[in-house]
Amino acid sequence: MIQTPYLLFLGDAPDPLAAKVAQGIKDWRPDFALGQYRMEGCKADMGLPDITLAEAKAAGCKTLVIGVANRGGVISQAWKKVLVQALEEGFDLASGLHNLLRDEEDLAAVARATGRALHDVRVPEVDYPIANGIKRTGKRCLAVGTDCSVGKMYTALCMEREMRARGMKASFRATGQTGILITGDGVPLDAVIADFMAGSIEYLTPDNEADHWDLIEGQGSLFHVSYSGVTLALIHGGQPDALILCHEPTRPHMRGLPGYAMPGMEDLRDLALRMARIANPACQVVGISVNTQHMDEAAAKAYLAELEAKMALPATDPFRFGAGKLVDALAAI
Amino acid sequence: MIQTPYLLFLGDAPDPLAAKVAQGIKDWRPDFALGQYRMEGCKADMGLPDITLAEAKAAGCKTLVIGVANRGGVISQAWKKVLVQALEEGFDLASGLHNLLRDEEDLAAVARATGRALHDVRVPEVDYPIANGIKRTGKRCLAVGTDCSVGKMYTALCMEREMRARGMKASFRATGQTGILITGDGVPLDAVIADFMAGSIEYLTPDNEADHWDLIEGQGSLFHVSYSGVTLALIHGGQPDALILCHEPTRPHMRGLPGYAMPGMEDLRDLALRMARIANPACQVVGISVNTQHMDEAAAKAYLAELEAKMALPATDPFRFGAGKLVDALAAI
Repeated sequence: MIQTPYLLFLGDAPDPLAAKVAQGIKDWRPDFALGQYRMEGCKADMGLPDITLAEAKAAGCKTLVIGVANRGGVISQAWKKVLVQALEEGFDLASGLHNLLRDEEDLAAVARATGRALHDVRVPEVDYPIANGIKRTGKRCLAVGTDCSVGKMYTALCMEREMRARGMKASFRATGQTGILITGDGVPLDAVIADFMAGSIEYLTPDNEADHWDLIEGQGSLFHVSYSGVTLALIHGGQPDALILCHEPTRPHMRGLPGYAMPGMEDLRDLALRMARIANPACQVVGISVNTQHMDEAAAKAYLAELEAKMALPATDPFRFGAGKLVDALAAI
Repeated sequence: MIQTPYLLFLGDAPDPLAAKVAQGIKDWRPDFALGQYRMEGCKADMGLPDITLAEAKAAGCKTLVIGVANRGGVISQAWKKVLVQALEEGFDLASGLHNLLRDEEDLAAVARATGRALHDVRVPEVDYPIANGIKRTGKRCLAVGTDCSVGKMYTALCMEREMRARGMKASFRATGQTGILITGDGVPLDAVIADFMAGSIEYLTPDNEADHWDLIEGQGSLFHVSYSGVTLALIHGGQPDALILCHEPTRPHMRGLPGYAMPGMEDLRDLALRMARIANPACQVVGISVNTQHMDEAAAKAYLAELEAKMALPATDPFRFGAGKLVDALAAI
């Protein structure tokens, strides 16, 4: 569990896209984002106050989150200077970088000396159990995709926001690095040992109030041969009551797999539901979330209307047009 | 890769069942099993010559394989004495025990000093790639089960033996600890990091001659919620051309999951084939392997005949009645 609130470290971000993690925190957990720390040459700006470490400390920040990708997979000396100082000032550090903070000898030594935590969210910090398959109280919704990176995390976050705005009980449950940094907690599922994957999701979504919804961040796709096992562990560990089908309509083939065609929406519905009902026979497909970012508004709306008619399910782009339809469908089951 | 041939260490096995790994090596790789090493009180006997370390060395043994489960998860001082001496004599050690050889400080130190290898086959020794899904040359057969522990490894080993007897090109590909110790190589799939599961199976079953068959050891079941993700990674990484359905008819519910009924054979056929065809559209279900160990011979034969009629597929217990039918079916595709 990462201590909040955060100081968002933007470093020397070469462009706004490099600061995707910081943007996610700013968008989805604005309460956690008290300020930003930018270095010489930084091309990203979250529109937050630029504050010093001392100011961040005074404002109550507990953790400096590396909200930016590093160049060439190296934690530069320029970054190190700030990170070491942050540890000395009493901040924990949190990072989703491929190269781990704990593997940097200087950072590890200063963290030990100062008693601060280094959170490398790519590495599990918990010994997860093997899944026991026992039915849990409370409700769970899982986003499943035709492919990887079609908007499953944003779908769950959009739904959580809408549900909370309506006074419903809802918790986004992160299963990837960005999601974990956004919320401060979660399971880095792609780094979990095979035997414990489903168990890690049971751990992430424990018994809850009968009217509480976990909105579980999806990963991979049953149709993506590189990662399908991760997806199935999520379906069987999550025991979802509701599935949201996620899709990106302009993709020519499965991500990173030129030889693999995208499945149809009916294929996804049928296969995901078949799989989900092994763990929860009452599971239903309740709606469709489409990432329409590469379509103009008229085309997006036409596509969604066509899909609704064809699939007899509510369809929206929750980031562009709101998650209301999906939440209506969830509230109805 | 574990160096062969082996000296089978039976230690102080409390009963024959405890020496399951040694029995597997003796049954399936008799050429690797040059002798056995038994300590005071050993209740297991492979029917191999009882030899000393010096005799084993002279006979050409390269590795001492711990072929027996230890009591209480502790490597005893009595074992240690033999294991240290084996390292000093120039043997590598191989083990599938839960507690690792490498975590024993004395064994690790002696191995370093003598330059010998400690193979803990529960831990991957390779950095596996992420699966790329590219079609490979050669053919692959995968055993899939209605449940865990229904005889998938024995099915593949029986088929390999029958195929080699017929002069066909066939390689058993181990994906579990026992299989790895039997053959000296393989992927400990349940211990692989989630993102690399399918890639590890691609690595295990690379391009091969057009008429060569990999017989891939199955793991878990698509219907077993604790391990289904591992099974799917095996299906998508293995790209099987042929599936064998495996079943144990007397089981009251899924192993370790009292709330979960066993699936029907048709369910397994349909779901496994649907999944396999995502990676290999030409995949076929070619036969059924039933573990009939809890049935008398008449009941077993009646059950198999009924299953053949119902499923229109050859069905046998390959360990009890031979793998001929399954190999005939494989040879026909």
